[in-house]
Amino acid sequence: MDTKLEQLCVNTIRMLAIDGVQKANSGHPGMPMGTADMAFVLWTRFLKHNPANPSWPDRDRFVLSAGHGSMLLYSLLHLTGYDLPLDQLEQFRQWGSITPGHPEHGAAPGVETTTGPLGQGFANGVGMALAERMLAARFNRPGFSIVDHHTYCIVSDGDLMEGISHEAASLAGHLGLGKLIYLYDDNRITIEGSTDLTFSEDVSARFAAYGWHVAQADGHDRGSVAAAIRQAQAEAGRPSLIIARTHIGFGSPNKQDTAGVHGSPLGADEVRLTKEGMGWPVEPPFLIPDEALALFRDALDTGRAAEAEWGALLDRYAAEYPNLAAQWVQMTGGELPAGWEEALPEFTADDGPVATRAASGAVMEAIAPRLPTLAGGSADLHPSTKTYLKAYPAVRRDDFSGRNLHFGIREHGMAGILNGMALHGGWRPYGSTFLVFADYMRPSIRLAAMMELPIVYVFTHDSIAVGEDGPTHQPVEQLASLRAIPGLVVIRPADANETAAAWRVALHNVKGPTALALTRQKLPVLEGPAQVQRGAYVLADAPDPAVILVASGSEVHVALGARDLLKEKGIEARVVSMPSWELFAAQSPEYRDSVLLPAVPRLTVEAGVGMGWHQYAGDSGQVVSIDRFGASAPYQVNMGKFGFTAENVAAQAEALL
Amino acid sequence: MDTKLEQLCVNTIRMLAIDGVQKANSGHPGMPMGTADMAFVLWTRFLKHNPANPSWPDRDRFVLSAGHGSMLLYSLLHLTGYDLPLDQLEQFRQWGSITPGHPEHGAAPGVETTTGPLGQGFANGVGMALAERMLAARFNRPGFSIVDHHTYCIVSDGDLMEGISHEAASLAGHLGLGKLIYLYDDNRITIEGSTDLTFSEDVSARFAAYGWHVAQADGHDRGSVAAAIRQAQAEAGRPSLIIARTHIGFGSPNKQDTAGVHGSPLGADEVRLTKEGMGWPVEPPFLIPDEALALFRDALDTGRAAEAEWGALLDRYAAEYPNLAAQWVQMTGGELPAGWEEALPEFTADDGPVATRAASGAVMEAIAPRLPTLAGGSADLHPSTKTYLKAYPAVRRDDFSGRNLHFGIREHGMAGILNGMALHGGWRPYGSTFLVFADYMRPSIRLAAMMELPIVYVFTHDSIAVGEDGPTHQPVEQLASLRAIPGLVVIRPADANETAAAWRVALHNVKGPTALALTRQKLPVLEGPAQVQRGAYVLADAPDPAVILVASGSEVHVALGARDLLKEKGIEARVVSMPSWELFAAQSPEYRDSVLLPAVPRLTVEAGVGMGWHQYAGDSGQVVSIDRFGASAPYQVNMGKFGFTAENVAAQAEALL
Repeated sequence: MDTKLEQLCVNTIRMLAIDGVQKANSGHPGMPMGTADMAFVLWTRFLKHNPANPSWPDRDRFVLSAGHGSMLLYSLLHLTGYDLPLDQLEQFRQWGSITPGHPEHGAAPGVETTTGPLGQGFANGVGMALAERMLAARFNRPGFSIVDHHTYCIVSDGDLMEGISHEAASLAGHLGLGKLIYLYDDNRITIEGSTDLTFSEDVSARFAAYGWHVAQADGHDRGSVAAAIRQAQAEAGRPSLIIARTHIGFGSPNKQDTAGVHGSPLGADEVRLTKEGMGWPVEPPFLIPDEALALFRDALDTGRAAEAEWGALLDRYAAEYPNLAAQWVQMTGGELPAGWEEALPEFTADDGPVATRAASGAVMEAIAPRLPTLAGGSADLHPSTKTYLKAYPAVRRDDFSGRNLHFGIREHGMAGILNGMALHGGWRPYGSTFLVFADYMRPSIRLAAMMELPIVYVFTHDSIAVGEDGPTHQPVEQLASLRAIPGLVVIRPADANETAAAWRVALHNVKGPTALALTRQKLPVLEGPAQVQRGAYVLADAPDPAVILVASGSEVHVALGARDLLKEKGIEARVVSMPSWELFAAQSPEYRDSVLLPAVPRLTVEAGVGMGWHQYAGDSGQVVSIDRFGASAPYQVNMGKFGFTAENVAAQAEALL
Repeated sequence: MDTKLEQLCVNTIRMLAIDGVQKANSGHPGMPMGTADMAFVLWTRFLKHNPANPSWPDRDRFVLSAGHGSMLLYSLLHLTGYDLPLDQLEQFRQWGSITPGHPEHGAAPGVETTTGPLGQGFANGVGMALAERMLAARFNRPGFSIVDHHTYCIVSDGDLMEGISHEAASLAGHLGLGKLIYLYDDNRITIEGSTDLTFSEDVSARFAAYGWHVAQADGHDRGSVAAAIRQAQAEAGRPSLIIARTHIGFGSPNKQDTAGVHGSPLGADEVRLTKEGMGWPVEPPFLIPDEALALFRDALDTGRAAEAEWGALLDRYAAEYPNLAAQWVQMTGGELPAGWEEALPEFTADDGPVATRAASGAVMEAIAPRLPTLAGGSADLHPSTKTYLKAYPAVRRDDFSGRNLHFGIREHGMAGILNGMALHGGWRPYGSTFLVFADYMRPSIRLAAMMELPIVYVFTHDSIAVGEDGPTHQPVEQLASLRAIPGLVVIRPADANETAAAWRVALHNVKGPTALALTRQKLPVLEGPAQVQRGAYVLADAPDPAVILVASGSEVHVALGARDLLKEKGIEARVVSMPSWELFAAQSPEYRDSVLLPAVPRLTVEAGVGMGWHQYAGDSGQVVSIDRFGASAPYQVNMGKFGFTAENVAAQAEALL
């Protein structure tokens, strides 16, 4: 290839980034300038993609974990022919554009994940590579590698400093995800200055310790980068990290290799000097030389041909393996198989009391055979969270055909990997831990909600009823803090049947994640249909209730007990089970008023902080809650000491009247 | 030392753990059984402590990061003579005992930190060792090493899998914290089974990559453990990790080396078999042989003598360096120097608009000279968060005399290290990042609140007014989710003077952490005294207000603008600035009613999720909020599009009437 033309292409990327940031007067030019060489090599010589069809299932995945370098990605997408017009690059970081400050999945085509919060893309890539291996194990047959793509990621110093990179990298190494290839933009500059200030670890030795293959490259020598990528591709049994030494702000005469070029526009003068220094016309901005564009746009032909070839392979596969091919369509299409809900178990009082975590486990076992996409695991707690699908094996480095994942004690990594699996497609991933440890996963849960990923979180041990493990293991503020996340549906079922209904809602919810909050302790099975999909419903009524008891989860039973006590005193109470605020908020005002009866005083009961319950209690109501941390004691003792007894709730309700 | 007696001592630890868990019928016996040998060696041959005075400032710190092994710690504390009576061991995990399921700082004496959520103790230890080095640099003089202690920690597989261990270890290696000595309980078992399921990294190589000294030991060969500790003590320039191969549940004939012994009692039969196998009387439980107790209790004499020797040194130091000695008393006493508040700057409208992050920076610079304990830093964002104390150097591996810490892009590690610094004493630590990244720190913030540690979090870029960086960098649910944490005071000041007042409150708050939420954008300076300490106050009034506008932070100015617009329409509005819910909740009901006037309709205005604001808006009021993720656009555009304008707020207020 013509070196001069290559250089022109690389500089085109640089200049688009410089001009985009300069026009927005906001952004991070240094990273795209420093990584343009390696990105060019990857995107023009290695990346298997079809810009005309960003959803080709067997495309290579490309993740820009260092999301602040978004103009790099936008430039590449535009240049290689994705439906991202140049005027959108000119509208970088503006209201209504599809080129926001950090890449957002769902905005511009070809953006595989939302990045910016550091470390997240790193874990997403591991999830994508894992999803690929698991699909390959399921579908590939001799001569038919219909699932066979790489996952590439550009990662920064910051990504590697974040703890989530440790968790995800350690698991990727353990599983030997050989088709994962990460390019580390080793520019030695962060916002505060040189990485010497804080970061002196031996990255190469660290990743080797995780079981990764590590290669070195000169990030500005395209031959060196290409050789390292080839070497990484040849390494089938280990993920690869290519440590590419680069210069942030490459080409800026006064700002290269400084923190000043990290997160601020170059400024008009420095833009001019940089362009002049590189022999680039100072005007106009957003200039794309025709010959550079032509080279990049080869990706359209190459990509169409590659996808067509794959399509032909898939056709032959369908002829040879019609059942598998049908399942392929099913799994990658994202639709649930018809009739799966018939497998949902129904529980009766005769079953005796059942912890909702146990009910959830029974539901999962029952539906798993009908839902081949259901796969996931726990952060080393499946014996407690009941999320292991016993009929299926676990995923191992030498066998990816299982559906159970051992994430290890890596909650954050798990959550980031789940995001990657969901983004990849083919799977409806779930992950589980104790509710209190949802805190560890929060940055990834937020991104799942932002990307509207249909993930199910199974959070068990959902209150002070955890008991003896004490306050460190007892959630009190977690329900509130999860409900605060826009787009996350939180469901806290009151019994086994509400748990089954919660799973039904969760799996039908394809526009975002769902979090289930489940009990450790056993609960009686309730009569009557569980109307979880309505968010709240009248569970036990009275002709003319004097008071309404609104409760969630295990406290519904406390409310039912209180109702009986009140009745003995001649006070009629309605009990409302409210498993989900978000689902209730989506109901009509008429339905909501029919449940909560605005004229009747209400008492809300939940073993967690009271925050947010006032909207349901109202000015004339009261909130029974725990606005402190819990305590280590047998769970019945805790429930009594913290006032979650029928007696106390009845007394509080009476006091309202 | 008599090997037989040693073995008796070690088995005493094991049996207390077995009996404690068995009696509680809940807990984790396997870890104490596996680590009893190494803990015995550490506590009887190396640990510098005085059980009669758990707050001796120069004691070695011991952290049980694997907090589920709490019975190990309780046994050691009782045996060596801390004020932890045997009946408390018998009351393990019961209501009102000082022996909760996981160690809680403040419950039993000698518990240096609250552990259980894995990885936290690992980071706390780094903070303690850092605090020690920083105090040593400040106070030690030739011949007077008045600050000179080790920090020991027992860490588990889970601790090392958690990402926070990576962040803290990398920074500890970078800083060369040579007096940090960690013993890794390498038992190869987690709750789900063998670590082979998930954990195959080369821990030794990983920690060497961080710049740690790594030693191997046989965790059941006490000589081997002692040799490794001596080697670690001799290594002055690097933290040490001693990888001690152990057998979980050591001595249990049927459960040793199984996951079954991790988190469940042995059961009566296995207790009997274990005791018989070790030549221990099956009855009574909680048996402590006299000769074993005598050996352990040597710690009282040794400890008293050690502290007395140190006290004599401190006396000579006080004679030689009276000023330093006075400062020592001041800094380690935890009281703020008299008159420090005089240094708090006052801002006037003449200063022009000031971002509250900038005001916070000015406050910090102004008070730092008066507050020698104030030290901290940021997770690679100080140019944005304005938390660098320019008059002081940064802490470096070859010079710990500074007060600025570069934490790197390690928010979680930062938060865990801040906890350790606060626990150590001598410092009032602060840490900063963007508010949205508080999510990364949440597990450690929770523990800071639980332990009531007086830490200040400086969270800037506190709303959609972050602007162009987009939704990944714009907090919307973070204010709510932080307010949900019991014991955390959240303050969102409305201008520079409220910011100064917020710092005053934060530094006077010694019973827990305080989080400041500060703007990126400039805000006008308000007139009149900022009554932040009351949580909310009337900022602009009307003789007979028809409506009350309640706002926090930058939205106070929007409310003031709306008040003017309403006035033009003849509607009198009161504006309440509400920087802190927690502080307002602590006021008298009379004061609260005098501010919010129950009979007057209220509109609350905050650029975040509405959750929880209904309690202030009331049934007749409304909540102006953002119940979705933000957008990438210039901040003024965002504020307009999301309805945070005087016009929209005035219209919403009018609609209430």
